Amino acid sequence: MGTSVESLESILEKNLPADELNQVWNILYGENHPKGNGIPVEAQEIADGHNFELKVHSFNAALEQLRPPRRVKVGLFQHAHPVPTTAPVLDQLNALHKLAERAIAAAALTGVNVFCFQETWNMPFAFCTREKLPWVEFAQSAENGPTTKFLKELARRHKMVIISPILERDQFDVFWNTAVVIESNGEVLGKTRKNHIPRVGDFNESTYYMESTLGHPVFDTSFGKIAINICYGRHIPLNWAAFGLNGAEIVFNPSATVGALSEPLWSIEARNAAIANSYFSCAINRVGTEVFPNPFTSGDGGEPHKDFGHFYGSSYVAAPNGSRSPGLTRVRNGLLVVDLDLNLCRQVKDKWNFQMNMRLPLYADLFTRASKPNFKKQIVGRGLSEDQSEKDLTNGN
Amino acid sequence: MGTSVESLESILEKNLPADELNQVWNILYGENHPKGNGIPVEAQEIADGHNFELKVHSFNAALEQLRPPRRVKVGLFQHAHPVPTTAPVLDQLNALHKLAERAIAAAALTGVNVFCFQETWNMPFAFCTREKLPWVEFAQSAENGPTTKFLKELARRHKMVIISPILERDQFDVFWNTAVVIESNGEVLGKTRKNHIPRVGDFNESTYYMESTLGHPVFDTSFGKIAINICYGRHIPLNWAAFGLNGAEIVFNPSATVGALSEPLWSIEARNAAIANSYFSCAINRVGTEVFPNPFTSGDGGEPHKDFGHFYGSSYVAAPNGSRSPGLTRVRNGLLVVDLDLNLCRQVKDKWNFQMNMRLPLYADLFTRASKPNFKKQIVGRGLSEDQSEKDLTNGN
Repeated sequence: MGTSVESLESILEKNLPADELNQVWNILYGENHPKGNGIPVEAQEIADGHNFELKVHSFNAALEQLRPPRRVKVGLFQHAHPVPTTAPVLDQLNALHKLAERAIAAAALTGVNVFCFQETWNMPFAFCTREKLPWVEFAQSAENGPTTKFLKELARRHKMVIISPILERDQFDVFWNTAVVIESNGEVLGKTRKNHIPRVGDFNESTYYMESTLGHPVFDTSFGKIAINICYGRHIPLNWAAFGLNGAEIVFNPSATVGALSEPLWSIEARNAAIANSYFSCAINRVGTEVFPNPFTSGDGGEPHKDFGHFYGSSYVAAPNGSRSPGLTRVRNGLLVVDLDLNLCRQVKDKWNFQMNMRLPLYADLFTRASKPNFKKQIVGRGLSEDQSEKDLTNGN
Repeated sequence: MGTSVESLESILEKNLPADELNQVWNILYGENHPKGNGIPVEAQEIADGHNFELKVHSFNAALEQLRPPRRVKVGLFQHAHPVPTTAPVLDQLNALHKLAERAIAAAALTGVNVFCFQETWNMPFAFCTREKLPWVEFAQSAENGPTTKFLKELARRHKMVIISPILERDQFDVFWNTAVVIESNGEVLGKTRKNHIPRVGDFNESTYYMESTLGHPVFDTSFGKIAINICYGRHIPLNWAAFGLNGAEIVFNPSATVGALSEPLWSIEARNAAIANSYFSCAINRVGTEVFPNPFTSGDGGEPHKDFGHFYGSSYVAAPNGSRSPGLTRVRNGLLVVDLDLNLCRQVKDKWNFQMNMRLPLYADLFTRASKPNFKKQIVGRGLSEDQSEKDLTNGN
């Protein structure tokens, strides 16, 4: 579909009468899907002036007797690379910082408490090229790099937690796909790294960095317990479950993924994680098409080319009760602000009891056995092996 | 929404121009969503004559050099309870068998290889009542009960694998929520039982039966390796993963679930399982509203009543590539026939590599530790416990 379709929401809003539109939202996004909220004039002016979409929505939870509501506003920012990838690295980085400053200013005016960028937000997503230069020049220290320093100041100024997914160069010159968590006082609270690395299509990331060795940390910030599941990790339900076991209330999924590959998966995976683990999930995708200086091939027999398709945005927030927000567009920069009540997490746990009924020891045992070379599948019936059950077309048959 | 909305599909088809309708399907159901196929006249006549919807769709896979296509037609049947729940048990059972015979006849005419009913298909879903009588009279031997005998004959006649989810009474008079797998030669291949039992809303199933002790069997049938994840088990991603590890190519999810509770979860969970585990998933839900003889309460402070809401049907099939079929209606009996190629499972595994990149030993270790009482969550930051992080409103504060 490329850029020809702005969004699912825009098609439906244009064509459906109000009552049927509401029925469709009830089915697609849940009867408790968040309602649109007012947007401060000044925030809207920034968005209009710099051509990004600004949406504000709100989820509700029940009032409790012993806990006051714990309302948090999350801000998800999706953006296209603002300058050509052929520009000097410093020019690209400066343009991205300028873009970020505006988005964070609009977020602050909207009252955002926790702001998150897309995956490796401060560079083009150059891993399709398999080139190391100049792209690794974007890699930085998570604790002291220029992007972290820049964001620490903004976090402190706006009293906002900022999650900054970057390409990290550590003290041993090892690269990692990392998310830095900056507290609302401007201090770096910690970092987490991508747990699962894709080897699919143009996502040659295993050429650049390895799987995280940092586990599944949950960051106990001034605005709730948050975790970050970076990009391809959203395909692995066990990964989402691990963040839940460690107590996450909001899990951000900063991503960079293109339409031809993953669009039918996008609306499903982060939302399923919110349901299965009784937390909020925030899925953020890059937007636009990035063109690189040199042609590269995609391992699919096709001609060399300079881009790897359209990042389709469509960022959204899903709630533990299965409802979700509308998405940002497929084609433009956008800031999605969602006001939520963390109390909903435990309320859903107390209702559905997935955590009580999940039989963790049963799966711990199975997964331990399945991790060993002598694992025998539990198969009833003809007992044919997978190879035998398929017709053997080789000569040795 | 109750019964006021027939289906998402019907609203969209009524209102959207063809090109925009196609764009919406591409976003919602994937660019490779299955296309409608021809329906044999005789099958359509049975459906029309007995007032059930009949839909036929087809998924494609790529041609391979060494494996021929392995095409299988699955049939999913959703139905309302055909007679009042006040009728004698035998009358209810006979009416259900008659209904089943017609559905299986239509399925046979459409070429179905593997047919599956909804959860405890041969009885009303009476677990809302908390009454044992007369409902446990519907319980039967999985191997030799009247329903199994009835279906063995149909399976043999039509050379069809039939999955029959029933309430089982075993040799020790223990009840189980069981699915019987009958091979296409009419023999019982085996059975599986519900792994996760709900304690939510009117689903008082833990009053009637316990969690399965049979593991996660995969049945190697004449039409591929299939497994059955019964109802509430669809909320547990680890459960779906276990069937995948044991080699399932199609996992059926016979269910009974009502709109007010689970509708925003329905379209997400089975489809996510298909994506995460690179197999086909078949989600089947009961349809209609069942009224019981005696009033019961729902543990929600409400007045006693005789039904627990509308089962919303909406059965569908999802593919490992993330695409899915349209759903059956929310309001009527229906048979969904989907023609699929099992080769797609391994093709998707070879493309996305989730099975290679899932780091099973990491999660085996984490889940083992989390199963033990001294587990310490991996929390970075203030290190406050969950209780401390919430404002304490008690006097002891």
